[in-house]
Amino acid sequence: MNNAPIGIFDSGLGGLTVARSIIDQLPGESVIYIGDTANSPYGTKPVGTVKTLALNVMDKLVERGVKMVVVACNTASATAVFDARQRYEEQGIPVLEVISPAVHRAVSATHNGKIGVIATTTTIETGTYQRALNAYQQMQVTAKACPAFVDFVERGITSGPELIAVAREYLEPVKAAGVDTLVLGCTHYPLLAGVISYVMGPEVTLVSSAEETAHDVYRSLVENDWLNENDTTGQKPRYEFLATGDTESFRGLARRFLGPEVANVGQV
Amino acid sequence: MNNAPIGIFDSGLGGLTVARSIIDQLPGESVIYIGDTANSPYGTKPVGTVKTLALNVMDKLVERGVKMVVVACNTASATAVFDARQRYEEQGIPVLEVISPAVHRAVSATHNGKIGVIATTTTIETGTYQRALNAYQQMQVTAKACPAFVDFVERGITSGPELIAVAREYLEPVKAAGVDTLVLGCTHYPLLAGVISYVMGPEVTLVSSAEETAHDVYRSLVENDWLNENDTTGQKPRYEFLATGDTESFRGLARRFLGPEVANVGQV
Repeated sequence: MNNAPIGIFDSGLGGLTVARSIIDQLPGESVIYIGDTANSPYGTKPVGTVKTLALNVMDKLVERGVKMVVVACNTASATAVFDARQRYEEQGIPVLEVISPAVHRAVSATHNGKIGVIATTTTIETGTYQRALNAYQQMQVTAKACPAFVDFVERGITSGPELIAVAREYLEPVKAAGVDTLVLGCTHYPLLAGVISYVMGPEVTLVSSAEETAHDVYRSLVENDWLNENDTTGQKPRYEFLATGDTESFRGLARRFLGPEVANVGQV
Repeated sequence: MNNAPIGIFDSGLGGLTVARSIIDQLPGESVIYIGDTANSPYGTKPVGTVKTLALNVMDKLVERGVKMVVVACNTASATAVFDARQRYEEQGIPVLEVISPAVHRAVSATHNGKIGVIATTTTIETGTYQRALNAYQQMQVTAKACPAFVDFVERGITSGPELIAVAREYLEPVKAAGVDTLVLGCTHYPLLAGVISYVMGPEVTLVSSAEETAHDVYRSLVENDWLNENDTTGQKPRYEFLATGDTESFRGLARRFLGPEVANVGQV
């Protein structure tokens, strides 16, 4: 079990920021990543459809013998994790997700109890972050959808006057609410941390679900005594990147998100 | 000036975590990185020697036409920045460093005013972080040198029982002091954030100088209107990695720190 890969899944590319944080923190672990690009984006689909699609992809990871499933997708984290846990945890495979690690960190980080959340339109509309944050007393949550951000990231634009103007407009109500902590509730957004920090100002704490989820994975592997023995023997880990849709466009963008580990992208 | 590269310098490899954060946040910017590996580590040398060495390397960056110098080295940030600013800012070249961004973030982040700092022995002994943090009222600072951490990172070991035992021993007094915020005061340590977060517990905020320095660079470029126009025209940035010592060993480790951008390492 220890040397089995970690399974990571997203509707598309965004989850690669989570994969990268995991690979950074745990360079001895093998990873299988599936981007369900044939059905991306999940955000515009009915909840029942997302559940079916997400469980279908997670089944593929479990068939490949992963020791853990990481749902690196906000929409799937908001909709399919309960079912996934019922399905896989009885086989001894834990299911981790991206929302609760970020929520815990934000609640620890805030001084004034005013927390912002930015995400895609669908993630904001499901209200998952807002409910999770409101489960803590005395939190005042300001949520804002930033629909154009993903497109900027995928075009490789992370600065310049156009993006800064868009970011100013999106973030204006969040700033006006006086938040001291801002959750980046979309796995694409860590790549915009520069512009977001610039617009929000240096006093605001940014919480990246990618990094917090990686800490969660680390903790879970240590506590289960499931660390890959590669990490002490010096054997090379294996990285496998799979897409359900077109692999060529996935590969091009994936190298930008993650780096050289994306040598090839297979079809699943 | 806009399309000139950003110059980044460290005594060795650690500064590559800073370079990576800058490249992530500003993928349109060109970068020249020099690792003064022939004279590494700086930490054990007298202050006057470090100043001379550091200014010598920064001169090489300035000769190559950089628009900004980032001192991605804690020892040099603690000793050579004052002189570097005198020397280069009159030529219109700003000098940024890694200590003050991390200190500002830590002071913003703490709730209980108890902040930990971990770094190499020399950085702790210079007391630079402690003084910078104590410049803010009501901060109680616990500093701890973690001399073996760099070696673990350079051997690629970021988990396993040996490292966890060492981390527990180093971090025990920092935990005992009840800090709620911990500054990773060495540019190697972001690669150990998993084990450090595991040992400290999820409630403790980790502050990475790499990421905070990248935000500082972003802010400075936007405010000076110095962003590379590549970022909007889609032209490819150039990355140049140079070492004063052996380039082969630098290249091997550098790819682990930074990724595919380290295609080749030149001699300087």
